[in-house]
Amino acid sequence: MRYLEDFTPGQAFTSTRRYVLTEEEIREVGERWDAQPFHIDPVAAEASLFGGLVASSVHLFAIMISMRAAAGDDDPVAAVSALGFDRLRLHAPARPGDGLQGRTTVLECRESKSRPELGVMRSGLELVNQHGDVVFSCESAFLVRKRP
Amino acid sequence: MRYLEDFTPGQAFTSTRRYVLTEEEIREVGERWDAQPFHIDPVAAEASLFGGLVASSVHLFAIMISMRAAAGDDDPVAAVSALGFDRLRLHAPARPGDGLQGRTTVLECRESKSRPELGVMRSGLELVNQHGDVVFSCESAFLVRKRP
Repeated sequence: MRYLEDFTPGQAFTSTRRYVLTEEEIREVGERWDAQPFHIDPVAAEASLFGGLVASSVHLFAIMISMRAAAGDDDPVAAVSALGFDRLRLHAPARPGDGLQGRTTVLECRESKSRPELGVMRSGLELVNQHGDVVFSCESAFLVRKRP
Repeated sequence: MRYLEDFTPGQAFTSTRRYVLTEEEIREVGERWDAQPFHIDPVAAEASLFGGLVASSVHLFAIMISMRAAAGDDDPVAAVSALGFDRLRLHAPARPGDGLQGRTTVLECRESKSRPELGVMRSGLELVNQHGDVVFSCESAFLVRKRP
């Protein structure tokens, strides 16, 4: 388990595994949460701005959160709660077959004023495809435990 | 279908349906994307900051996106692409049995400079529980088609 003291601003972690997007999963997540034609219907998607099926922001955010935990990779962060996320940006389409790697950069670590056992950690999170292009990014703020 | 011209800043929409959270779904979405004890394990969750199972940020973001489409309710917005999301905030825990309503407030509508057939619509999105408390909020920016 990694605690607040184990992180310093500027540290960067890259996930060892890549998350490979499938058409089946793009359509399934789309049908469930974000039923836009360009997430669920291959024919309509071809006529869309994207020229084919693309993963929804819900899907990319979910993959990012699942990869964040895996940046390290099997050594979880002692997170107590998410506080929020800022500047979620969709930079490039994420398509079936793309392999997404998670990249985390520590931006800030500070102790909580009201809860001495806790701190706030802000990080920059990115999903990078097999060509090295960032497809999705955001900043996260988590409450993290200090070392007991 | 509603186009850019159908919206003006200050307009607000509330979903007619409530999304009722179940323990089963909180745990299933947690297991799949955000396997923190307080999302997946009722016993460990009792000992957590939350005192019980709570929905993950992935789950709340997904519900918010699915409710956004439904604010209107059956009259979809001619969205071409999500551009990004800002200021995602988890204000209060969302627990099994909570009924979440989606609230959308139009913040800004402007024409695209480079694509005359498109515009950018920024909105404030909220999920409100059965007690009237906002549990989750964010701002969205979408590319939206102008009326053909």
